[in-house]
Amino acid sequence: MRETIQQRDPMNATSNRQFRLAARPVGLPRASDWSLVEEPVREPGEGEFLVRIEYVSLDPAMRGWMNEGKSYVPPVAIGEVMRAYSAGEVIASNNPRFPVGSRVAGVFGVQQYVVSDGKGARLVDTSLAPLPTYLSVLGMTGMTAYFGLLEVGAAKQGDTVVVSGAAGAVGMVVGQVARIKGCRVVGIAGGADKCRYLVDELGFDAAIDYKREDVRAALRQHCPKGIDVYFDNVGGEILDIALGQLAMHARVVICGAISQYNTTEGVKGPANYLSLLVNRARMQGMVVFDYASRYGEAAQDMAGWLADGRLKSREDIVEGFDTFPDTLLRLFRGENTGKLLLKVG
Amino acid sequence: MRETIQQRDPMNATSNRQFRLAARPVGLPRASDWSLVEEPVREPGEGEFLVRIEYVSLDPAMRGWMNEGKSYVPPVAIGEVMRAYSAGEVIASNNPRFPVGSRVAGVFGVQQYVVSDGKGARLVDTSLAPLPTYLSVLGMTGMTAYFGLLEVGAAKQGDTVVVSGAAGAVGMVVGQVARIKGCRVVGIAGGADKCRYLVDELGFDAAIDYKREDVRAALRQHCPKGIDVYFDNVGGEILDIALGQLAMHARVVICGAISQYNTTEGVKGPANYLSLLVNRARMQGMVVFDYASRYGEAAQDMAGWLADGRLKSREDIVEGFDTFPDTLLRLFRGENTGKLLLKVG
Repeated sequence: MRETIQQRDPMNATSNRQFRLAARPVGLPRASDWSLVEEPVREPGEGEFLVRIEYVSLDPAMRGWMNEGKSYVPPVAIGEVMRAYSAGEVIASNNPRFPVGSRVAGVFGVQQYVVSDGKGARLVDTSLAPLPTYLSVLGMTGMTAYFGLLEVGAAKQGDTVVVSGAAGAVGMVVGQVARIKGCRVVGIAGGADKCRYLVDELGFDAAIDYKREDVRAALRQHCPKGIDVYFDNVGGEILDIALGQLAMHARVVICGAISQYNTTEGVKGPANYLSLLVNRARMQGMVVFDYASRYGEAAQDMAGWLADGRLKSREDIVEGFDTFPDTLLRLFRGENTGKLLLKVG
Repeated sequence: MRETIQQRDPMNATSNRQFRLAARPVGLPRASDWSLVEEPVREPGEGEFLVRIEYVSLDPAMRGWMNEGKSYVPPVAIGEVMRAYSAGEVIASNNPRFPVGSRVAGVFGVQQYVVSDGKGARLVDTSLAPLPTYLSVLGMTGMTAYFGLLEVGAAKQGDTVVVSGAAGAVGMVVGQVARIKGCRVVGIAGGADKCRYLVDELGFDAAIDYKREDVRAALRQHCPKGIDVYFDNVGGEILDIALGQLAMHARVVICGAISQYNTTEGVKGPANYLSLLVNRARMQGMVVFDYASRYGEAAQDMAGWLADGRLKSREDIVEGFDTFPDTLLRLFRGENTGKLLLKVG
């Protein structure tokens, strides 16, 4: 069945604002590393559809995509629209799988509109969960936490799980899933409010405020038998301290290293890595895409836990598309609690 | 059947020279960190036997045992005989499992004689292989290489295997076993003679002389598809370079870090560890004791390969018990090729 083009509010969709990468940042991205470009919205062609983007996901990984050189995905080219996961509403369509009025998520970029052929896009059901949740617990964030913890980290009942960046998007889900699986969970986060939230609202067994506490002493206190799974989002000194507290046969999941992404002095390697030898432990990197064929399985678990209240999705939503360059920096300043999203006004 | 005490050459076994740890070294061990003690040889008691030690195994791991603090074995105490694997002949016995004239290997220490109750000792058959081989390919060295490569590294046919410290005791076995298993093998060693030996005598596909060559460029050349298994004995800069050349799903085996054992400035952590993330790779430590229940299986393979000439055991034997403090340093100066043994005169 071939539909003819449908369109909604065509008058509002004439101009598309986009953030394009203007220069490769040195250290923290600056305003001059971006160009805000306005171009006409293109009509969707054969098999395509037009999305009005409502939310843009802001992720620490974006900083890596801005660098030159080989990584797990090609870098964003200079002059290209910044890569981002986003979600919105289909407002014109030549693709029967994505009819007008449906909600979709995908790698749509930091812009107000996108024309997609459906590649990498998926329909989402906002009667089951609000749209932002599909960029959070039910999106790449949740998948990263789920497979990182359960597959790479091989967390099992009774394990002591420590997660850094615990009040961040991924960390928060890691801790909650670990609790659901019967692990003892200790989060490391920056600030008393975040720590309180993790323990009081999300049920973490303990939270360590790295800005005020002696992390080594606190880990010893909260993990008397050592750490079985350390899920690392931050790198740097906290990774080193955690390595020093591993239990035998521990698993260290390298998911990210936000403390190192903006360094201009070279990444700090984990000097305590020989703890891997002493403890017969492993440190393993992960990229969520490798689990794409199993997202369905994870999403079903996550949706079930969301429904029965054992898993909470928390988004930190900032309004105003044009605030993007500064809002992105909130990640590196540790200002967000939960999933940082930009609401496209 | 209970034997009465047997004894051979009792007159020669009245005095036992021992190296005891006198002080915890800072940096490279110095002469003053040792005390050479002479004490009377004790008669073996009930269930015990007396061994005249012929060879003492010198291992980089000994440096770690000299440090204070938690590790995979307790540190050698100040005043204690230095821990070492050794092998020799039973010259008096109250233990029917270890009769006079039999050859034994075990953790007997840096001394000329030891009284053992048989714990951790094993009989070796010098009609099958010379005694030094039981401290080398058929000893902990060989077991470390075998299980590190095949279990922790999960090396399989067609893999590109890179080993550092390749002309050292463990490295040499790692490379040969990898060749036997159908891997492409590249060794990293210090000096043209060592490199020639690895390629010409042991059949390595390539060897890189880190003292003269650009290791990064040479690895790129010899491992065009990247490194599937990196077996690390050295740590430091070479570990970092190897991490930068990993193939997808690579395994990094942390067996040792000889470049870091004598540092007084803190261990250099691998700054390239985020390559584990990009390549979904793992880095895992090992301690050979964990495979004790499977030593028999490995020894059978190794003995078969020795017999059919596919595996060579090379020992670097230094004569003279009293040279121990200086001979040990040969390991850290990279002066040995193959297994460094001290022959007890």
